[in-house]
Amino acid sequence: MKFCSSCGSTVEFRVPPGDALPRHVCPTCSTVHYQNPKIVVGALAEWEDRILLCRRAIEPRLGMWTLPAGFMENEESTAQGAARETLEEACARIEVGPMYTLIDVPAISQVHIIYRARLLDLDFRPGEESLEVALFAEADIPWEQIAFRTIAMTLRHYFDDRRSGNWSFHTGCITAPPPAGGKPVPAG
Amino acid sequence: MKFCSSCGSTVEFRVPPGDALPRHVCPTCSTVHYQNPKIVVGALAEWEDRILLCRRAIEPRLGMWTLPAGFMENEESTAQGAARETLEEACARIEVGPMYTLIDVPAISQVHIIYRARLLDLDFRPGEESLEVALFAEADIPWEQIAFRTIAMTLRHYFDDRRSGNWSFHTGCITAPPPAGGKPVPAG
Ligand SMILES: [Zn+2]
Ligand SMILES: [Zn+2]
Repeated sequence: MKFCSSCGSTVEFRVPPGDALPRHVCPTCSTVHYQNPKIVVGALAEWEDRILLCRRAIEPRLGMWTLPAGFMENEESTAQGAARETLEEACARIEVGPMYTLIDVPAISQVHIIYRARLLDLDFRPGEESLEVALFAEADIPWEQIAFRTIAMTLRHYFDDRRSGNWSFHTGCITAPPPAGGKPVPAG
Repeated sequence: MKFCSSCGSTVEFRVPPGDALPRHVCPTCSTVHYQNPKIVVGALAEWEDRILLCRRAIEPRLGMWTLPAGFMENEESTAQGAARETLEEACARIEVGPMYTLIDVPAISQVHIIYRARLLDLDFRPGEESLEVALFAEADIPWEQIAFRTIAMTLRHYFDDRRSGNWSFHTGCITAPPPAGGKPVPAG
């Protein structure tokens, strides 16, 4: 941020009076421009013993598999966001169930929230941001090709809970940086 | 938003290519300025059979009681945010427990997350944004003077769960507008 979005002046980066952290502050109109974490919402949608995954048509992690998920929009609920993202990325209609995982990713200032859901019909197809959409049984999950660590964690909880029959809400926090190297690796 | 925060040009409000909603788009540098919901994080901190409330020294709801809570900052986890807000508003040190409530407030594009927590000592006092900080037993909760509906919902869940002994994570969504009228009324 270089310019004030309210008046167009060049902003300064300093600690406002009574605050604890430096912010982008406008010296002309005094607006403090806060920057806050973003929420990613998505759905783990079931059809019998299979779950819906999308193969990404966009960066990051182009070509890798993920649950339908994306940035929550203003004026929607987290559950509405999960249904909207599933419709956008997989052209799939779902009945949203309970919130299932909430995983902090402080290194990139994101919080990822995934709902359990029930796929309402089989008329899904790739949306603009997906190359493929498909149902996967546990044995067929492409574990080495899951796009994001929060999604891999969510899938592991899901299959563990399904096996045990003890469903619960799971929280987590990804603190380690993604592994470096030439191979595409899950991150965030 | 009137000006591009990257280059200072006047922004346009239109649907970018491949998008579904209108955004603030810069015609000069092509930056799309997304606006997303904000997360409020806080803590319900216990000391024996009492819980910690703060009386607000700032608007909105100046003079009313709330759990220590505030906007999550970049590069922290939700749990870290809950501990930070408790330290800032009540100068209180806590051990953060499980996530307890997550309540959507789509009308104001916020998601409120409250953790259960254990107060570590009694050396609390009002921070800059609080007039008073005090421990309340259930019978003494000032129900008519709770600042926000998400906080009142969280407190009701807490005392219900404590009575039943069945602790669980609760989600919710506040869809109705706050009641109108002259009296200060809980909102958000
Ligand atoms: Zn300004
Ligand atoms: Zn620009």
